[in-house]
Amino acid sequence: MSENKKTSLENIGEFGLIERITAKATTNRSSTIYGVGDDAAVLRKNDKEVTLISTDMLVEGVHFNLMYTPLKHLGYKSVVVNLSDICAMNGVPEQVTVSIAVSSRFPKEAIEELYEGVHKACDIYNVDLVGGDTTSSLSGLTISVTAVGSALKDNVTYRNNGSENELLVVTGDLGAAYMGLQVLEREKSVYKANPKIQPDLDGYDYLLERQLKPEARKDVVEFLKDLKIVPTTMIDISDGLASELFHLCTQSGVGAQVYDEKFPIDPKVSTTALDFNVDPATCVLNGGEDYELLFSIKQEDFDKMKGNPHMTVIGHFTSKDSGIYMIDKQGAAIQLKAQGWNHFQEGGGDEKDDQ
Amino acid sequence: MSENKKTSLENIGEFGLIERITAKATTNRSSTIYGVGDDAAVLRKNDKEVTLISTDMLVEGVHFNLMYTPLKHLGYKSVVVNLSDICAMNGVPEQVTVSIAVSSRFPKEAIEELYEGVHKACDIYNVDLVGGDTTSSLSGLTISVTAVGSALKDNVTYRNNGSENELLVVTGDLGAAYMGLQVLEREKSVYKANPKIQPDLDGYDYLLERQLKPEARKDVVEFLKDLKIVPTTMIDISDGLASELFHLCTQSGVGAQVYDEKFPIDPKVSTTALDFNVDPATCVLNGGEDYELLFSIKQEDFDKMKGNPHMTVIGHFTSKDSGIYMIDKQGAAIQLKAQGWNHFQEGGGDEKDDQ
Repeated sequence: MSENKKTSLENIGEFGLIERITAKATTNRSSTIYGVGDDAAVLRKNDKEVTLISTDMLVEGVHFNLMYTPLKHLGYKSVVVNLSDICAMNGVPEQVTVSIAVSSRFPKEAIEELYEGVHKACDIYNVDLVGGDTTSSLSGLTISVTAVGSALKDNVTYRNNGSENELLVVTGDLGAAYMGLQVLEREKSVYKANPKIQPDLDGYDYLLERQLKPEARKDVVEFLKDLKIVPTTMIDISDGLASELFHLCTQSGVGAQVYDEKFPIDPKVSTTALDFNVDPATCVLNGGEDYELLFSIKQEDFDKMKGNPHMTVIGHFTSKDSGIYMIDKQGAAIQLKAQGWNHFQEGGGDEKDDQ
Repeated sequence: MSENKKTSLENIGEFGLIERITAKATTNRSSTIYGVGDDAAVLRKNDKEVTLISTDMLVEGVHFNLMYTPLKHLGYKSVVVNLSDICAMNGVPEQVTVSIAVSSRFPKEAIEELYEGVHKACDIYNVDLVGGDTTSSLSGLTISVTAVGSALKDNVTYRNNGSENELLVVTGDLGAAYMGLQVLEREKSVYKANPKIQPDLDGYDYLLERQLKPEARKDVVEFLKDLKIVPTTMIDISDGLASELFHLCTQSGVGAQVYDEKFPIDPKVSTTALDFNVDPATCVLNGGEDYELLFSIKQEDFDKMKGNPHMTVIGHFTSKDSGIYMIDKQGAAIQLKAQGWNHFQEGGGDEKDDQ
């Protein structure tokens, strides 16, 4: 390695780094159906089914702050964010492996508490913990989870299969996890300035739960199956709607228009955003960590899902040349940028470009 | 978590911690054939085959020291140690995911160098890199790899299927990786004491390569297939022969006798061990990181492998009550202890109890 012209990680950001690394990741084995570049890798299983594999790493001080993150919730969330990736492929999560590196600052009771959350997530999502690794670290806690799932071969939802005029749908509501983080960070600052002041978290239950204990939309995968809808594309919203929309558009070779008035936003998000002087739409576009699903459907499938309270149409794919725009309440078209978190710069958020 | 009676991790060691954690890891899904407790988890694939999943975490300062570990070798080794787990199940590795957490101290060129090693291992072992995660860390480098493989359902080699009188076989030679580490540590101490003295690594090529760039015995899996031998048990030697022998005996409910004069030891290991005042047999028993395979075969299979230069019979399983013994060159029976590395205490080694 040349010492002369080093490039710092801050200047590349994660997407650039991943692109460089995965440029060489050719797939040679016949059992690899799809490798790097989607929410999960897709592997040959049998005539009807495929195996899905997704992995994520959570690092103390980068993805979580133990000052306000209960270890049990952290264990739960570590599993859930990986199950969410399997759901985003329209698959059913079945197994996880959980590896941790911990410094001696953590007593065994802390690790047991973390694993209580892991087991809880496994119970709730009917997933088996089938392996992992435990090791020491010189400082801090790092958690790496790999999720394994399966899907019918013909029902897998990739990111690159979208077409013009298909409808864009999101599940649940967006922006709450981000506002939850803002509330926690505010109270942390207050506490740091004066440890005698108790944190004021009253009334923020929904936001805090969305941040600290998100859920994977396994139920949506089941709804879609019942409704006989196979989305043309799907991705989970871990980095904010804008970033995920960019992934779908770029990989499908299409543009998009979404309507800010259609964004599903909980009233508590709107009021808290106002307190923080943030536009609620910005929370939705750039916030992240909601772990809802963004997917596209053919127009003829719209009637099947109309009135479903879990799904909201927010726009549609356009031609590639039309770009990616949000239409605001005044009818102005605002060009979107892929503002996923660059946590090499900001030391926060949970950015993922692949499995 | 009670603050009163915390138990430090040093007092439990990894095996104790894993036992506590995995006690709750029940398997509920029909697709889980075998969960925690072997080299890899075994999942249902199709009528003939199973999917194997294994994962490992490598932490800077615990599993590797960048003062003497080239990043390319580190990337290579991170993949290989996981492929070794798939081989230990008598399977063929097919895919890996590689996740890294890096601090800003690493320029992008360093990460690219690490991935050069990852890609090299993938090329050599015909394995596809299908995913991963890249993230920042507050300090140091952590690598987490998950390997996926497949095996014929009837040919999977578990740890718990051994019986009295079966022969114990090891592949290759043992102790070299450990002696390689000793040489590197010695030169590091010399360099720290006086940075002007150049490290003297001449003549230690074999030991250093075994430590820094180990190989997985994928070839042995192929030999066994060609020889039509399905071992009754198999495990990879990551923590030293004694520790692995204990796993096989404990999980199979048998005892064992191994003969120190049978241990395959490279002459360079013997001479270097003498320089370091260590018994070569101790390197074999407690050294670890050779990533050779230890397996058991039925006596009637012995003729099939007789004369194969890659495999050495070192002893046999006995009854459980007979215990686990090494017979030394003088005929004395020495009771063995499972001295795998406890890296919560020692901050070194690479201990694994499960996938």
